[in-house]
Amino acid sequence: MRESLWKSVLSVRQNSPLVHNITNYVVMNNTANALLAVGASPIMAHAHPEIEEMVSICGVTVINIGTLDEYWIESMYKAAAKAQELGKPWILDPVGAGASNLRNTTVAQLLKYKPTVIRGNASEIMALANAGGKTKGVDSLHQSTEAIDAAKWLNENTGTVVCISGATDVVIFGNQKILIDNGHVMMTKVTGLGCTATSLIGAFVAGQPENAFEATAAAMALLGVAGEIATAQSNGPGSLQMNLLDKLYNITEEEFNKHIKVSQENGKTVSI
Amino acid sequence: MRESLWKSVLSVRQNSPLVHNITNYVVMNNTANALLAVGASPIMAHAHPEIEEMVSICGVTVINIGTLDEYWIESMYKAAAKAQELGKPWILDPVGAGASNLRNTTVAQLLKYKPTVIRGNASEIMALANAGGKTKGVDSLHQSTEAIDAAKWLNENTGTVVCISGATDVVIFGNQKILIDNGHVMMTKVTGLGCTATSLIGAFVAGQPENAFEATAAAMALLGVAGEIATAQSNGPGSLQMNLLDKLYNITEEEFNKHIKVSQENGKTVSI
Amino acid sequence: MRESLWKSVLSVRQNSPLVHNITNYVVMNNTANALLAVGASPIMAHAHPEIEEMVSICGVTVINIGTLDEYWIESMYKAAAKAQELGKPWILDPVGAGASNLRNTTVAQLLKYKPTVIRGNASEIMALANAGGKTKGVDSLHQSTEAIDAAKWLNENTGTVVCISGATDVVIFGNQKILIDNGHVMMTKVTGLGCTATSLIGAFVAGQPENAFEATAAAMALLGVAGEIATAQSNGPGSLQMNLLDKLYNITEEEFNKHIKVSQENGKTVSI
Repeated sequence: MRESLWKSVLSVRQNSPLVHNITNYVVMNNTANALLAVGASPIMAHAHPEIEEMVSICGVTVINIGTLDEYWIESMYKAAAKAQELGKPWILDPVGAGASNLRNTTVAQLLKYKPTVIRGNASEIMALANAGGKTKGVDSLHQSTEAIDAAKWLNENTGTVVCISGATDVVIFGNQKILIDNGHVMMTKVTGLGCTATSLIGAFVAGQPENAFEATAAAMALLGVAGEIATAQSNGPGSLQMNLLDKLYNITEEEFNKHIKVSQENGKTVSI
Repeated sequence: MRESLWKSVLSVRQNSPLVHNITNYVVMNNTANALLAVGASPIMAHAHPEIEEMVSICGVTVINIGTLDEYWIESMYKAAAKAQELGKPWILDPVGAGASNLRNTTVAQLLKYKPTVIRGNASEIMALANAGGKTKGVDSLHQSTEAIDAAKWLNENTGTVVCISGATDVVIFGNQKILIDNGHVMMTKVTGLGCTATSLIGAFVAGQPENAFEATAAAMALLGVAGEIATAQSNGPGSLQMNLLDKLYNITEEEFNKHIKVSQENGKTVSI
Repeated sequence: MRESLWKSVLSVRQNSPLVHNITNYVVMNNTANALLAVGASPIMAHAHPEIEEMVSICGVTVINIGTLDEYWIESMYKAAAKAQELGKPWILDPVGAGASNLRNTTVAQLLKYKPTVIRGNASEIMALANAGGKTKGVDSLHQSTEAIDAAKWLNENTGTVVCISGATDVVIFGNQKILIDNGHVMMTKVTGLGCTATSLIGAFVAGQPENAFEATAAAMALLGVAGEIATAQSNGPGSLQMNLLDKLYNITEEEFNKHIKVSQENGKTVSI
């Protein structure tokens, strides 16, 4: 699997997919920079009169509810509906799901437009699936493994690939599962790396929407490996934020293969 | 006092308070990163339908008027009113007070909800108290000492702790005063470090709302000391922004005590 | 010409012009930091009730349509109209012009308020002038030289200085042209450096509105030279973003003169 994951990295660099983001104010700069670093081309746009054109010209739309309000929620609905209508991939990041009624009703409505991939921490995935669990803001309270039942429920009911990010990232589709053990705990001290993960998934899925499951794993593996290497070069979260962008930009196949820790489960068969 | 200030730093690291921010677009990323670096947990949320829930679940709300507009002003009023109703601490950063009529009427209204702490530069504090002084944008025109009368007026009329930041930071409550002589002039070349100061005050006050006076001094001392150390490692404001986050994250008690320059005045008694 | 360009750099440092920005969410932090680094004083403000006051108290207004929506478009119209009424300089950055009907109608309306300077990539300048060319998001598809006809048309019809940025930046006014061959391709991997260029043009024009042509060239030359030096010190776009701010802050006349590659054409006369 390592080879095909690295091929996804190269594919983004070569094809420079156009990634449309409706995301939160906190992370717009980092997200755009991470997309540029991996070779993608970011567009941030949310105005109702142009939202459908933006969905149409881009390879994928990423919807992140981090700093939602009534206007932006309407933008998200319009974009998701248009993507569904056109058969284009779109990705959902349910930031802070469970923290307010507004977030819960918004993600419930967005689920109806059947996202191609959902990425969240365990609390968010559980809130999404009404599998209980109140979120402590945007931080995770649960181990990612506890949310696997919720992810399976989401996959069965919407057909979406689900990625539960945490110390171990778990990507689920049907009875297949990919586990990624990369990353470093200091990454939780840089704001918005979850949001960055979701945008990178968008870039990777744009190039291979027919295999969103593996594209999602490739994006998560790249971010985890790059984050791990960058952390080793950093004195704290400030330099990590910077070094991570550098490493997303200049990571080599050798580095990727040296660090990646990934395993796949297909039903009861486990392969590495 | 040094010991109790350092205890506040440790307390934030250990208790990871949830800090709700209604702040400006320019600084959201930095503010969130600074809060994470000191060990707090940031939430940025402004939507009217969820604003009261956010105030309720968080330990403190920070309101910063930097890029206000009609919708956000209403969010600020709702949040401040809810915090007052619940007896929760909330912090006001009157960015650019005095620069427009809109800002003046907004902060006048916000004062009615009795913030726990106000932090601004001398111009902003003076504008707030109608003590004269026209602001030159968000930069300070006045020495912080000139605004002390304004700060005393604010304290007497609203019961709030007031922090005038500048070359010397002055924290005022009743007839007590703490002076902090840390920081470096290069910090004025990094956007939003005043806003960062205000958010850190929020994190510190969340853990000891009964002693917001000393919590405010601890936050200002931490930022000043970390900024001073970070400046010595930096070639300019770009690297300072990065090194500051690293230092907020990894500062030790030894470093803190070595650099801190703080004095306290209680009426006419001065102690160090 | 080198000497007068460097004089512009010094003038900004000495006079610290107040630069009002109505810009996009992605770049607000970087733009503010770049303005501070060169010695200017940034204000970000968009609220309708204060927009005219902000135009009045600032030396220049910079309007960037990157993340426009209905409210912000109205802010832009109000600001541009006020600047025109007061005879104050204002700068237009038509981000993504050509990518949606909304952007095209917005920039068409803004042109009526006769911007002092327009800066965009070749696609954007061409879209602006209806000279054809569909934009691929906010990236350039065209060599800057291809947009020169469009720039001339804009100059003739609105009297504005036009800067087409790209591998070679071209600044056009009447039959005069300044070509700047600085910068580095890695700068296209840092989000918003085009927007930063536009804000720096604002800072430079504020100090010499009577010579916006040369002020624009000075801002572009400074960014290009600083970017070139910063790239040589960087491992990727993350460190470039940081080192660029440092270099904008501490660049010396010697460095500027050593690296600058600028030439001027006046009709058929070329000078260096």
